[in-house]
Amino acid sequence: MTLVKDSLEPIYQQIARYFRAQIESGRIAPGDRLPPTRDLARQLGIGRISVVSAYAQLQAEGLIAAHAGRGTYVSGGRAPVRGLDGASRQFPGAPDIPMREITRLAEQPGVIAFSGGAPPEEFLPVEALRHALNLVLDRDGAAAVAYEEADGYPPLRAGVTEYVSSLGIQCQPDDVLITGGTQQALDLVVQTVLGEGDALITANPTYLGLLDIVHVRRVRPVGVPVDGDGMRLEAVEAAIREHRPGLIYAAPTFHNPTGAVMPLHRRRQLLALAAQHNIPVLEDAVYHELGYRGTPPPPLKALDEHDLVLHASGFSKILLPGTRIGYVIASGPLRERLARVKQAADICTPGLNQRAIHVFLANGALIGHLNRVRLELRERCAAACLAASRHLPPGSQWAEPSGGLYLWVRLPDDGPTAAELYVTAIQHGVAYAIGTLFYTDGSGGRHIRLNFAAHPPARIEEGFRRLGAAWQAWQQTYAPAVRRAPIL
Amino acid sequence: MTLVKDSLEPIYQQIARYFRAQIESGRIAPGDRLPPTRDLARQLGIGRISVVSAYAQLQAEGLIAAHAGRGTYVSGGRAPVRGLDGASRQFPGAPDIPMREITRLAEQPGVIAFSGGAPPEEFLPVEALRHALNLVLDRDGAAAVAYEEADGYPPLRAGVTEYVSSLGIQCQPDDVLITGGTQQALDLVVQTVLGEGDALITANPTYLGLLDIVHVRRVRPVGVPVDGDGMRLEAVEAAIREHRPGLIYAAPTFHNPTGAVMPLHRRRQLLALAAQHNIPVLEDAVYHELGYRGTPPPPLKALDEHDLVLHASGFSKILLPGTRIGYVIASGPLRERLARVKQAADICTPGLNQRAIHVFLANGALIGHLNRVRLELRERCAAACLAASRHLPPGSQWAEPSGGLYLWVRLPDDGPTAAELYVTAIQHGVAYAIGTLFYTDGSGGRHIRLNFAAHPPARIEEGFRRLGAAWQAWQQTYAPAVRRAPIL
Repeated sequence: MTLVKDSLEPIYQQIARYFRAQIESGRIAPGDRLPPTRDLARQLGIGRISVVSAYAQLQAEGLIAAHAGRGTYVSGGRAPVRGLDGASRQFPGAPDIPMREITRLAEQPGVIAFSGGAPPEEFLPVEALRHALNLVLDRDGAAAVAYEEADGYPPLRAGVTEYVSSLGIQCQPDDVLITGGTQQALDLVVQTVLGEGDALITANPTYLGLLDIVHVRRVRPVGVPVDGDGMRLEAVEAAIREHRPGLIYAAPTFHNPTGAVMPLHRRRQLLALAAQHNIPVLEDAVYHELGYRGTPPPPLKALDEHDLVLHASGFSKILLPGTRIGYVIASGPLRERLARVKQAADICTPGLNQRAIHVFLANGALIGHLNRVRLELRERCAAACLAASRHLPPGSQWAEPSGGLYLWVRLPDDGPTAAELYVTAIQHGVAYAIGTLFYTDGSGGRHIRLNFAAHPPARIEEGFRRLGAAWQAWQQTYAPAVRRAPIL
Repeated sequence: MTLVKDSLEPIYQQIARYFRAQIESGRIAPGDRLPPTRDLARQLGIGRISVVSAYAQLQAEGLIAAHAGRGTYVSGGRAPVRGLDGASRQFPGAPDIPMREITRLAEQPGVIAFSGGAPPEEFLPVEALRHALNLVLDRDGAAAVAYEEADGYPPLRAGVTEYVSSLGIQCQPDDVLITGGTQQALDLVVQTVLGEGDALITANPTYLGLLDIVHVRRVRPVGVPVDGDGMRLEAVEAAIREHRPGLIYAAPTFHNPTGAVMPLHRRRQLLALAAQHNIPVLEDAVYHELGYRGTPPPPLKALDEHDLVLHASGFSKILLPGTRIGYVIASGPLRERLARVKQAADICTPGLNQRAIHVFLANGALIGHLNRVRLELRERCAAACLAASRHLPPGSQWAEPSGGLYLWVRLPDDGPTAAELYVTAIQHGVAYAIGTLFYTDGSGGRHIRLNFAAHPPARIEEGFRRLGAAWQAWQQTYAPAVRRAPIL
């Protein structure tokens, strides 16, 4: 591969174009492995960021696919997956750039990062946590730092039971399993309910962490399209008949990344569909409490008449990400199996963290904190929508969210994809999450997710301005070059 | 089933005898499921403890086997296991009484519990932890409670690198992955290296939590016999040739439950064997620092010339169980895969806990604490060995440990098995861990594990006295009855 370093065409575009030619000409066959980004970067004597970006673009074009921890392969082939039978299986649309990669690129000094998934850091109740920790250590002494029950600290399980009852969920403390954040709750359910190769239905796009689970657990993701009200039910029904899934994953309220809220009647229809085919539903309710325009419909679990819903949520988005306290609400034998898998996974969730969160629940501090965060989120959301209309390229599309942390934007067709624009955006001092990351099939190349919650209004305005400027710069500099440049 | 409540034969013996007859007569076939302990207890209007104990005895006899979260089945048959092919597989020796069950029974007021795996609670450095937590919150503010890097808090990874160098392990911070306790480190390695049905070699008996992982992950455990120096190598070699394992699990220093220490030459031979067959070795070093009679040989990782050893350890046994901080030291592509599985499992380990442990490492508090704990453990170990020679039934066998928390005792043949004695022991106010729990094949019925570290010398003396008394009582009351009693 020969790179023209002073070409108008950016390095990563040249790399992408080289591999595109290799693939289209068949010189690289489906299933062939591409060199690791780090190695290739060293080989070519260029920054890894260019290689990462080139691979991202090729995946956005569906030419390649990555497999968690197993490398990047030309699509249409079979990636080596260790299986009982020794046979290989392929998984579509594994994110080519893991979120950690995005985060690193976005962490460069001066970059305004809208790429992460964290709640606003300046509102994390550090002092209240300090108070809770000291209170717990005074009250419980060594018991607070000894092994905790595998199911969770009993008073916290009772506290969660009471807390979710305010959302309309009726359950017993025995139905509550405390987990290491909502992520572990999702992972425990997936590995308890599904086996390797089993199908899981999810909205497409969907939560990035679910795709991580899907690829690590070797589950087969079946993505169904969404509209403004979330998953389209006729597509869900078709997917059920075609793929016989073992589980339906649904994030009906302030869906990540789209922000969609599933209306009450569709929630009931989804549950009826699940009941008709007797398929358990994994509900991800982690954003449910972050609404700032009206109250969302009740969670699926509150409408669950056939005991099919496993309700997963936690305190990372609404209170303290770093304490890693989540929970899953389930009952019957499945609940017992979840507890066994949890115990094998890490024995128990840290007792001190559980007891501190329990203090927040017990003394009402959580409610006060939530009200404050909601007000701030509403303000930041308004600032983001205003900045978007001011600075994003004409033809961009988005829906104003009524809750959650994210603005989901579709860039216009007559310009760079999210992956193509990414490096330029970083160079202009702004970062976003590339849309393809959230899709099961590597589509969504024109979408970007912007976490406006992470910054105060002034920074949001400035960040969106930079994004618009990056778009302009790309159009003026690269677009003609790309059209002009021959295959090397 | 008819129970004679005022019989000299204890209820649980009657239940066990009923099922034994049913099984031996073929009225219950291999693969048939026994009723859940809770249901049967309700049905018979008796305490669940009797049913649990009866099942424990039947398993000790090899007549039945339990499968984590999937119930108890008559042995020799096939338990329903969800697999890709839909076929069923059977796993030998799943613990019939999960550790949580044992713990509950042992938690009755007045019972001196030697059954757990926790370090002495009265030495947990609660005040030092409080100091560390407040220091971290002062110093880092919100960053201490935000999302942490998936690989772990970088200064802690550097601190672990320096810490293990004192044990002779040379590694880089990038080789260190912080986990939710050592248990998660073990689980991540097993699920990253092995697939369903793959074989794993382990000492037999072995760590209970490893058996939990084995059953949840549907890995095939291959137990090799031990002597006073740990795993017998000719048995390891034979097992390698017969089962082609994907991983060898080894706890060479103060092995749980036996307390054995593998000598240097055998460590080298084990590694040579692994290298010869190119099989990775998962080293569990969680007790390595708890020696109180001389210094143990270096960890396997310190002797690892072929980069085959994955070194798992943590701070639960030596410092604070409840903070759930452990680590695995690995390098190369496997290290990267471990990080991906970790991120899918729970995104990250709580940052606050990691930063607090880092303070203990950085200010030297850990070393001081360790020295204090070692002194106390030596005293308690001596008290336990003395009490054992005083009170345990004649013919009992044990080896005096040189480190760790446990005394591993083999009861004499002319009396009850550990499972048979258990209920009587509880009634006499003492609890132990039943030996069969630690075996891959349900053998070891005459063994018990006693965690002497959990109690001061006086309590140890009293607890062992009660154990001896329980043995006497069982012999005088039940033994003749059992010999006399006809099948119901």
